[in-house]
Amino acid sequence: MKIDKIEKVAIVGLGMMGTSLAAALKNKSFKGTIVGYSRKENICKDAIEKKIVDDASINLISVVENADLIVMCLPIDLIINKTNEIFDHLKDGAIVTDIGSTKKNIVSLLEKKFKNTNKFFIGSHPICGSEKSGFKFYNEKLFENKVTVICSSLESPKNILNTIKNFWEMIDSKTIFLNASLHDKKLALTSHLPHILSSLLIDVFEKNKNKFKEDDIYSFCGTGFNDVSRLASGSSDIWKDIILTNSEEIIYQLEILEESVNQLRHIIANGNSDEIYSWLNETAQLREKIISKNRL
Amino acid sequence: MKIDKIEKVAIVGLGMMGTSLAAALKNKSFKGTIVGYSRKENICKDAIEKKIVDDASINLISVVENADLIVMCLPIDLIINKTNEIFDHLKDGAIVTDIGSTKKNIVSLLEKKFKNTNKFFIGSHPICGSEKSGFKFYNEKLFENKVTVICSSLESPKNILNTIKNFWEMIDSKTIFLNASLHDKKLALTSHLPHILSSLLIDVFEKNKNKFKEDDIYSFCGTGFNDVSRLASGSSDIWKDIILTNSEEIIYQLEILEESVNQLRHIIANGNSDEIYSWLNETAQLREKIISKNRL
Repeated sequence: MKIDKIEKVAIVGLGMMGTSLAAALKNKSFKGTIVGYSRKENICKDAIEKKIVDDASINLISVVENADLIVMCLPIDLIINKTNEIFDHLKDGAIVTDIGSTKKNIVSLLEKKFKNTNKFFIGSHPICGSEKSGFKFYNEKLFENKVTVICSSLESPKNILNTIKNFWEMIDSKTIFLNASLHDKKLALTSHLPHILSSLLIDVFEKNKNKFKEDDIYSFCGTGFNDVSRLASGSSDIWKDIILTNSEEIIYQLEILEESVNQLRHIIANGNSDEIYSWLNETAQLREKIISKNRL
Repeated sequence: MKIDKIEKVAIVGLGMMGTSLAAALKNKSFKGTIVGYSRKENICKDAIEKKIVDDASINLISVVENADLIVMCLPIDLIINKTNEIFDHLKDGAIVTDIGSTKKNIVSLLEKKFKNTNKFFIGSHPICGSEKSGFKFYNEKLFENKVTVICSSLESPKNILNTIKNFWEMIDSKTIFLNASLHDKKLALTSHLPHILSSLLIDVFEKNKNKFKEDDIYSFCGTGFNDVSRLASGSSDIWKDIILTNSEEIIYQLEILEESVNQLRHIIANGNSDEIYSWLNETAQLREKIISKNRL
């Protein structure tokens, strides 16, 4: 099945990610029909009125039953539950994918469900997002020049994998195929750790509450504080699931972080100017290297 | 002395901060003369050509000797050294201020030097900046709607303090008077800790280098990673001085951070969904509260 054979895409979940995906497809002049599911009637209505989708409904089964491609744009636990719920209603040859930020759990459970059937599940993770959630924060350019990781076991047919690859590339995302377990190891470092560091800044702030008067200390937070703490405003529901489904790898990174904090504390206590400079300079140089190679 | 009595401002140091200050004054139609000092001839030439300053020179003494207000836009140790160097050449009634990110060291040393003379030192810290350093990154709107903290002992004459206050407010900065020691305690939490967290993310990255192939892992760094790590690209020279001159308060915050990391690691290891959600939700709510009250 080529991408032009996809006549109907069902987007299950019209939050920030799902709506951005629908809007990106419209923006790229996707030829087929885009149908959305939301549990809220007003969101369905809004999405139709704003022409982000061709149709939308709070009836999940009716949304997915004739779809060629179904994209589950939901929090991790709902991706699993709702995919199980729709499975029997999917047409032959239907492909289901998702946007979950951890993959081992989702892919292992759902590949098992779809195995030896004529329906297919391929995991996806577009590495993009926002700390804002909900319909109104959608962005049709969210996926452009970002990486989408495609996770599937080796048994998935090549044409199905290619359809998913072409689908993400149609909205200008780059694609990488990766084993789900290695995906989760890597993302623990590149995505889950940054999120946790952002929240840790706020946690330390909270622990200082008796030291400074509240309203007063807020005035001293500048743009640096705002940027480092931005991710802490993300959805606690989504991040709870990410942490729960990748706890082992996250704990591994937190152990390294604890070691780093401890080391730095000793470097600062030593008060050796060269040592402090070296620590800062090595991190500054590595950061520039990462960012420059990461520019797509 | 009112702000309109300042006929000549000397900006010592034409890096990102100094040049932004000169450009902001020009932008706000400051009536007097703006003279800049840089140790590099080509920067002096550039600043004059771009009409950011009226004149500039690599001869520090000639730049400051007739100035009414001298703003030391240099790294912390140079603020102290260069102010000592120019002291004898300042005219009667001249006011010196600075932009250093820590204040206890600078203010205590320089107030002692200026005490019982007819020249004045008042510390300033505009809470704004960039991870980029150098002339070419200047921004005439850098100070707008940001807070500048003014630090001086109680002995400074009120009219001198008012001149400094009016000076920063002229370029649309808000001003707060604060004791230098309390300034450093507060900034350890709101500015120095965010910077260190940003660098710690990169340090943990470095410690993972044997686990993942370099070029490969870079592709998985998204916008969240970029934002949290942004400050790590800041000048190692400037940040070395900030850490050295505020080490006690920074170590205090790092101890709290270590405790936070350890606590969170245990919460995650317990695997209790509600506990993880609560931790994330409390930090998300506090972050929103800080940001909303901080909007100027």
